Amino acid sequence: MLQLESQSLVQTMPQSTKTAIMIIGGAEDKVHGREILQTFFNRAGALEATIAIIPSASREPAVIGDRYRTIFTEMGAKVVKVLDIRDRSQSEDPLMQEYIEECTGVFLTGGDQLRLCGLLAETPLMERIRKRAHLGEITLAGTSAGAAVMGHHMIAGGGSGESPNRSLVDMAVGLGIFPDVIVDQHFHNRNRMARLISAISGHPDKLGMGIDEDTCALIEGDGVLQVMGKGTVSIVDPGEVSYTNQPSVGATEPISIFNLRVHILSYGDRYHLQQRVILPPNV
Amino acid sequence: MLQLESQSLVQTMPQSTKTAIMIIGGAEDKVHGREILQTFFNRAGALEATIAIIPSASREPAVIGDRYRTIFTEMGAKVVKVLDIRDRSQSEDPLMQEYIEECTGVFLTGGDQLRLCGLLAETPLMERIRKRAHLGEITLAGTSAGAAVMGHHMIAGGGSGESPNRSLVDMAVGLGIFPDVIVDQHFHNRNRMARLISAISGHPDKLGMGIDEDTCALIEGDGVLQVMGKGTVSIVDPGEVSYTNQPSVGATEPISIFNLRVHILSYGDRYHLQQRVILPPNV
Repeated sequence: MLQLESQSLVQTMPQSTKTAIMIIGGAEDKVHGREILQTFFNRAGALEATIAIIPSASREPAVIGDRYRTIFTEMGAKVVKVLDIRDRSQSEDPLMQEYIEECTGVFLTGGDQLRLCGLLAETPLMERIRKRAHLGEITLAGTSAGAAVMGHHMIAGGGSGESPNRSLVDMAVGLGIFPDVIVDQHFHNRNRMARLISAISGHPDKLGMGIDEDTCALIEGDGVLQVMGKGTVSIVDPGEVSYTNQPSVGATEPISIFNLRVHILSYGDRYHLQQRVILPPNV
Repeated sequence: MLQLESQSLVQTMPQSTKTAIMIIGGAEDKVHGREILQTFFNRAGALEATIAIIPSASREPAVIGDRYRTIFTEMGAKVVKVLDIRDRSQSEDPLMQEYIEECTGVFLTGGDQLRLCGLLAETPLMERIRKRAHLGEITLAGTSAGAAVMGHHMIAGGGSGESPNRSLVDMAVGLGIFPDVIVDQHFHNRNRMARLISAISGHPDKLGMGIDEDTCALIEGDGVLQVMGKGTVSIVDPGEVSYTNQPSVGATEPISIFNLRVHILSYGDRYHLQQRVILPPNV
């Protein structure tokens, strides 16, 4: 019976070695099964992986960088380096640029998404990471703040416990890995549905994606998103919205928005990001 | 300019004297404009109103009953009585039954919805209130716990801060004023979207309605819901749901549910409860 169960797990979530972009909702398991981090390791090349950890979102980059270095080194990665970027000028360092050309996986840690974007946005280094990820040459993962930066429009902060309203969410510009998506993380854990809806009401041409803790939206080159981990990925699709009262940025009046389409996806569920449709299970 | 603004308010929300059923999300303004309570008073007959306050949800029924009695008396209601029902047998009291036949408005206070249902469900008194409300003979309002009881399936309690899952919500049987609706209250204020989605995933034939504090879903006899007050009414419509993984009651595994339709309605927005469509503004 145990064997059957593990077989069916393997069937629904094969340990593919294809590259992917992994958006992780924060607080991923770093101790026990480490399923999400193990998947990053496998898709970055496993024993052949050359991994770059970018801890620049954190105010303690050395500590957090070291933590992930230990994990991927224990898993058996060939090379693991921490790119401890604390100044934009560092992204012109030829050694870093060379390493980014050689690496097979890049991992963006948590911290503060504004700090991460301040240091990395529109640098040549980040441009290469983005291009190589989209070409399928590397696996790119970001957790928490590293997930928040995935869109062009980025949730920089906000609140909960209020009716949806524009003052509930602070928007900034992210790294634009998936320009059409607005990502929120620690999603249901920190009760962020109202703030994601508030963000989407101001950008009804985008797609909202809320990712719970220890949960990952894994996106392959064909645009198919698959859910891994313990929680849910919530999709807030305004594609059919018939009306919104469009309060101005920062306004405290409650939002009206009609005809949102919402999907709650859990383990193994699949969704096509560009076509915005649910896909049948991956049997 | 002030005059123009107040004119437009009057236009969008005329002080109708038609009876209605008012589902209030709790914490309604009792001191300043008292818009929602004033509307209840007007629709219960204003200076001709004969009002019954049922404080049975509360563990301090005398105190809370008195508070509302003072408010409606100050407004000028002809008669205001508190029906302080603390035992099911009281609902057979001929004096109470007589008063319910004479009254023009019934107000259910907040407290504990299980307590309220325990005392009132399926009593002849409650049956008369329900019938008279549906015949349009009285205006019926419920706030907080008094709102939660409006459906047949009732949210009795639950949590927040988790991925949607069946253990996040405790279901019980309500008073069935609107049998097809599952009501949640203090909605965005207490971050209850995940628990309402969890409730709906177990009852995909119902309609979810989350009402914020100091906010009211006012429903007239034609089935048209109109929003009043400071916050939002969130509609979670599973009518087009294509799949749910249907975890069993109490299961902690996260829910999958695809193709929910969600509307966030604010002041003056109108929605047809039976047809499940947004209506054009009431100009």
